[in-house]
Amino acid sequence: MTLRIFVINPNSSQAVTDHIRRELERVKRPDTELTVVNPQHGPASIESQYDRELVKPHVLDLVRRANDEGYDVAIIACFSDPGLDASREISSIPVIGIEESTLHVAAMLGHRFSPVTAFPKHVPTRDLHVRMGGFEHAYASTLITGMSVLDMEADPTTTKGRILAEARRAVAEDGAEVIVLGCAGLSGYAKDIERELGVVVLDPTAVALKVAETFADLGLRHSKIARFATPPAKEIR
Amino acid sequence: MTLRIFVINPNSSQAVTDHIRRELERVKRPDTELTVVNPQHGPASIESQYDRELVKPHVLDLVRRANDEGYDVAIIACFSDPGLDASREISSIPVIGIEESTLHVAAMLGHRFSPVTAFPKHVPTRDLHVRMGGFEHAYASTLITGMSVLDMEADPTTTKGRILAEARRAVAEDGAEVIVLGCAGLSGYAKDIERELGVVVLDPTAVALKVAETFADLGLRHSKIARFATPPAKEIR
Amino acid sequence: MTLRIFVINPNSSQAVTDHIRRELERVKRPDTELTVVNPQHGPASIESQYDRELVKPHVLDLVRRANDEGYDVAIIACFSDPGLDASREISSIPVIGIEESTLHVAAMLGHRFSPVTAFPKHVPTRDLHVRMGGFEHAYASTLITGMSVLDMEADPTTTKGRILAEARRAVAEDGAEVIVLGCAGLSGYAKDIERELGVVVLDPTAVALKVAETFADLGLRHSKIARFATPPAKEIR
Amino acid sequence: MTLRIFVINPNSSQAVTDHIRRELERVKRPDTELTVVNPQHGPASIESQYDRELVKPHVLDLVRRANDEGYDVAIIACFSDPGLDASREISSIPVIGIEESTLHVAAMLGHRFSPVTAFPKHVPTRDLHVRMGGFEHAYASTLITGMSVLDMEADPTTTKGRILAEARRAVAEDGAEVIVLGCAGLSGYAKDIERELGVVVLDPTAVALKVAETFADLGLRHSKIARFATPPAKEIR
Amino acid sequence: MTLRIFVINPNSSQAVTDHIRRELERVKRPDTELTVVNPQHGPASIESQYDRELVKPHVLDLVRRANDEGYDVAIIACFSDPGLDASREISSIPVIGIEESTLHVAAMLGHRFSPVTAFPKHVPTRDLHVRMGGFEHAYASTLITGMSVLDMEADPTTTKGRILAEARRAVAEDGAEVIVLGCAGLSGYAKDIERELGVVVLDPTAVALKVAETFADLGLRHSKIARFATPPAKEIR
Amino acid sequence: MTLRIFVINPNSSQAVTDHIRRELERVKRPDTELTVVNPQHGPASIESQYDRELVKPHVLDLVRRANDEGYDVAIIACFSDPGLDASREISSIPVIGIEESTLHVAAMLGHRFSPVTAFPKHVPTRDLHVRMGGFEHAYASTLITGMSVLDMEADPTTTKGRILAEARRAVAEDGAEVIVLGCAGLSGYAKDIERELGVVVLDPTAVALKVAETFADLGLRHSKIARFATPPAKEIR
Repeated sequence: MTLRIFVINPNSSQAVTDHIRRELERVKRPDTELTVVNPQHGPASIESQYDRELVKPHVLDLVRRANDEGYDVAIIACFSDPGLDASREISSIPVIGIEESTLHVAAMLGHRFSPVTAFPKHVPTRDLHVRMGGFEHAYASTLITGMSVLDMEADPTTTKGRILAEARRAVAEDGAEVIVLGCAGLSGYAKDIERELGVVVLDPTAVALKVAETFADLGLRHSKIARFATPPAKEIR
Repeated sequence: MTLRIFVINPNSSQAVTDHIRRELERVKRPDTELTVVNPQHGPASIESQYDRELVKPHVLDLVRRANDEGYDVAIIACFSDPGLDASREISSIPVIGIEESTLHVAAMLGHRFSPVTAFPKHVPTRDLHVRMGGFEHAYASTLITGMSVLDMEADPTTTKGRILAEARRAVAEDGAEVIVLGCAGLSGYAKDIERELGVVVLDPTAVALKVAETFADLGLRHSKIARFATPPAKEIR
Repeated sequence: MTLRIFVINPNSSQAVTDHIRRELERVKRPDTELTVVNPQHGPASIESQYDRELVKPHVLDLVRRANDEGYDVAIIACFSDPGLDASREISSIPVIGIEESTLHVAAMLGHRFSPVTAFPKHVPTRDLHVRMGGFEHAYASTLITGMSVLDMEADPTTTKGRILAEARRAVAEDGAEVIVLGCAGLSGYAKDIERELGVVVLDPTAVALKVAETFADLGLRHSKIARFATPPAKEIR
Repeated sequence: MTLRIFVINPNSSQAVTDHIRRELERVKRPDTELTVVNPQHGPASIESQYDRELVKPHVLDLVRRANDEGYDVAIIACFSDPGLDASREISSIPVIGIEESTLHVAAMLGHRFSPVTAFPKHVPTRDLHVRMGGFEHAYASTLITGMSVLDMEADPTTTKGRILAEARRAVAEDGAEVIVLGCAGLSGYAKDIERELGVVVLDPTAVALKVAETFADLGLRHSKIARFATPPAKEIR
Repeated sequence: MTLRIFVINPNSSQAVTDHIRRELERVKRPDTELTVVNPQHGPASIESQYDRELVKPHVLDLVRRANDEGYDVAIIACFSDPGLDASREISSIPVIGIEESTLHVAAMLGHRFSPVTAFPKHVPTRDLHVRMGGFEHAYASTLITGMSVLDMEADPTTTKGRILAEARRAVAEDGAEVIVLGCAGLSGYAKDIERELGVVVLDPTAVALKVAETFADLGLRHSKIARFATPPAKEIR
Repeated sequence: MTLRIFVINPNSSQAVTDHIRRELERVKRPDTELTVVNPQHGPASIESQYDRELVKPHVLDLVRRANDEGYDVAIIACFSDPGLDASREISSIPVIGIEESTLHVAAMLGHRFSPVTAFPKHVPTRDLHVRMGGFEHAYASTLITGMSVLDMEADPTTTKGRILAEARRAVAEDGAEVIVLGCAGLSGYAKDIERELGVVVLDPTAVALKVAETFADLGLRHSKIARFATPPAKEIR
């Protein structure tokens, strides 16, 4: 039976959406059918809590569309899972966050993990998400490229060098055994870094896709008792 | 010198806004000038994470207005602080959340506190916010009225009886010493409950107003280094 | 491409092995090939830490066999994951524990989970494993059937009634949203309990199988840097 | 209406008392009337747990005096809050600790805070107080001047240089966004450090005064149910 | 070689001192020589944080005497260890707290422990000390006799019945496996309760004495690097 | 009355057993009678979780022998306490682990402790044991000699130099006040390191012996209610 999975790139960049689609086409099962979309409006990249708030209403619209069009699972494909809890409230199909699902997988693969992020100012968000997910015991450190998402895409050689250097330090000093590529566009480096450092490197979008397939196979749904209970119907002005 | 404080009721109910204004006028300092507003759009009450996501863009617009119009402090007057972190990012004046500030005050007034909420399905949100704020050691339990916000307003006698019964149980069984009235409209009962049970009862909107005055007096600003760093300017489609 | 998954029932009961095989045949993907085995020696059921120590050398032998015979993933199919860490040390293929993998999935499906166990004396083990895995924030309570594994198999009607009663209480009082069937042989009740209570009910063996497929699809291996480093070769007297 | 606030400098140094009075006169509200006192006996500075035990009976005597003389709030103005819990037991007016209240405010102003202390041997006390207050998640590190309180007062240039250097390092390496000046006499540097580093710098005595005003405005009292219950009357030999 | 152990009953009751001496004479090693003393001044019983502050200067005087008179170890024999940290600062011999040492032993003897206390208002102190010592994972609950220390001594039959009933409930509901008799005068019941309930019952004074002998045998001293560093010499007015 | 203590060296090295016996003969009480044994089979050193699983069945056999031959206490003398929980289940005499008992003593002697281990790959085990024992608040860091157990024995001068250098760093940077010699054979250096650095240095085997004497003196047994309940009798194939 064909699984139909709806992947939401929360930013409005068609290029990122295309990139995610290409990556996921490589790891999906043959019987999985992917739709990868992005909102027409909102910021083209997500680099702050403010950007996240702006994309959430669009994410919610797309989650509703995934439900209306009969998809089996929806994935929010931005490493901070914007709108995840609210999406689960309004959805009767499972909604997967790429950060949440990847941190759970990372915690099973080694003693501690280190997510990659762009700038030091993003560290508090990583800390907070780790703490809310209950991963303090498995959190080594945050790797910082010091380059914007755009710059990382424009200069892959420098990017890879930065990640390698940071990962090497995290393995030696922070006890990192798993590296989580916290930004889209980095997935191409995973195998090289694994080979050079002996660490496990995870691409969150790919991990989330396989978790989505697992949820669909098992017929899993989020509990609707309390945390993800369907919101009361009400008039919105 | 006059302090100018901008209070945002995140739901679109003018009645709630008026209620908040009346309550705050009673506790504000003589030299504090209050503006209490609500968005024109969005849900009239906030009872889910979904509702919270819908109001956040409106809250952000109003926080920007508070900055543009030269207010000294802004307060988000809904007990779950929707949009607090993003608001601080885009604001150069302090932004106070009524839940965050009240839990800090509650933790100074007794061994453990218990917030009041409407239904069991709201307990996970209380748990998560307590954990996010680092208050696990001071969290007794959640008191549940079993009545909607509307019903609580319509039937004050039953409401007060429910809160009293729940608070009595929390004091006896959960070690509660402080009760936090987690919904607007409940503040009228504070003194009665304090008298009957000997607990401390906090009205979050009032507490937040005084914390706002404190921040203004001391010239405090949120650190803009990382967690609340100003978002990069970008085109929003 | 065919996945070959090696499932280890750590106790020496052929009947339990057959039961696990039947259950997993129903949920496996068509292209997954299952081998389900048990050790020839050791206890026929695992009800103490002592029983667990007795089965671990046998589990390790079988994990080695899975490696030698070219399987893609090995699963330890007993809800306490006996020998999991040591297995990962001696294995170059991934080794999945049904408890560890199921608690990670449970934590994504609702606010808190409650595993089912036989007797009160098993609660400390549940507590310790929850703490070891970093799941304190997602742990509601333990459901106790008060029946031995043998009695549960012999009297399904009473068993189901006990689980239902305990789960109902855990939902109402402990905030449980997900029930984890911590003993093999209980999986038949999952759908009925879900229907009656609205909770999510997880069968750990099935969950582990899908996680195993995910690990194989993504080519994931455990990090061999430190926690699961290959043991130094040495003479064993 | 005039607020009457009683500030207790727990050490016996009149110079420190005068310094605190001058600082607080600058931040108090016009309608706040301050009395700042110190015990006649006890150590002239507080640099150990032993010193703290010696000053506590004197602090308790002064808290009793604040109650007897009808003050609205008492403040214990030493950054370790000696005698805070016992003071609240014997007091019917609120008693504010400058460390406790400042850490709560610090936790609202940035991701993590770093208190300044004199010597490495004081770090355990900072750690313990952070842990007992539930602030682990918000604790960046401790800044060490390496100078005694006396030396810091005698050589402000060196002191400020040391704090600046330590704060710069804490911002870069420990994620500090808020600096807490844990010793009296340092408050003069706050604005300069804020300007140079962009961090928020808090003067605990000033923060505590504003929290005291807040408590008085709202008529807050500590709960007397358990943790701060009035001690049973008894003969003291 | 004879060990000389100095036991400090922090309250001024000679009767309690005599009781402690009788109990300890029964468990001490033949080559241990005991001196059991109490301060001449201060409260005759310790039932609040206020009482604790009043006895601490006397405890410190007695710890100094133990050092001056060449004892090998000092024990503070009140279940809340008043003045323990400061005592260690001024002492070159080890100082043992009966609560701290007993909680460490309790944590080795079963899954969770429950201390006995007199009234609900004492629960916060038990909670705080458990948290300070890092024993949250091993803390079942607090057993409440509902009787003052005096009443417990006057009516042993009722006391024992209360403790038995509370312990039975804690074993059944809270997972308690170890009961800690948190008040002097209760030690006589330990064996009976162990026999009736199958729990382990600890008498803190006896446990502390054996830990003291262990410290002396091994020549252990508290580290004087930071937490228990010798206070700087200074004039005390 | 003579105490009879049964010390189990879990590895099969007679040389290590002899070393332990010599060390313990020096610290035991005159009336304590020691039997120190090792299994005939299994690995000659324990350097991985795999090695630990291999020795556990042998440890359990020896614990049973200690019970059958009427010993008063058994000690598992390997710093990771292999088989401790299962041993307690099958034993009616107390079983002491040298790691568990030493970490409890270390936590009473200073602010934070640092265990010594051989290689970085052993750090996760130290982390996990610290976490399971509830010692996070007292854990400074792990000291790494970078030498195998064999090499440490062969070259004591280098070994001592490495430990000294690591300990000096841990005291200066990590807040270590207590050093725990996590490998047998290191005990000879304790006094020298204490003298040079002023830290407390613990030899776990010696500490465990004194804790064993304490347990025997007080007639302590592990609670058999749940965590260490006697396993149900069953046929083992």
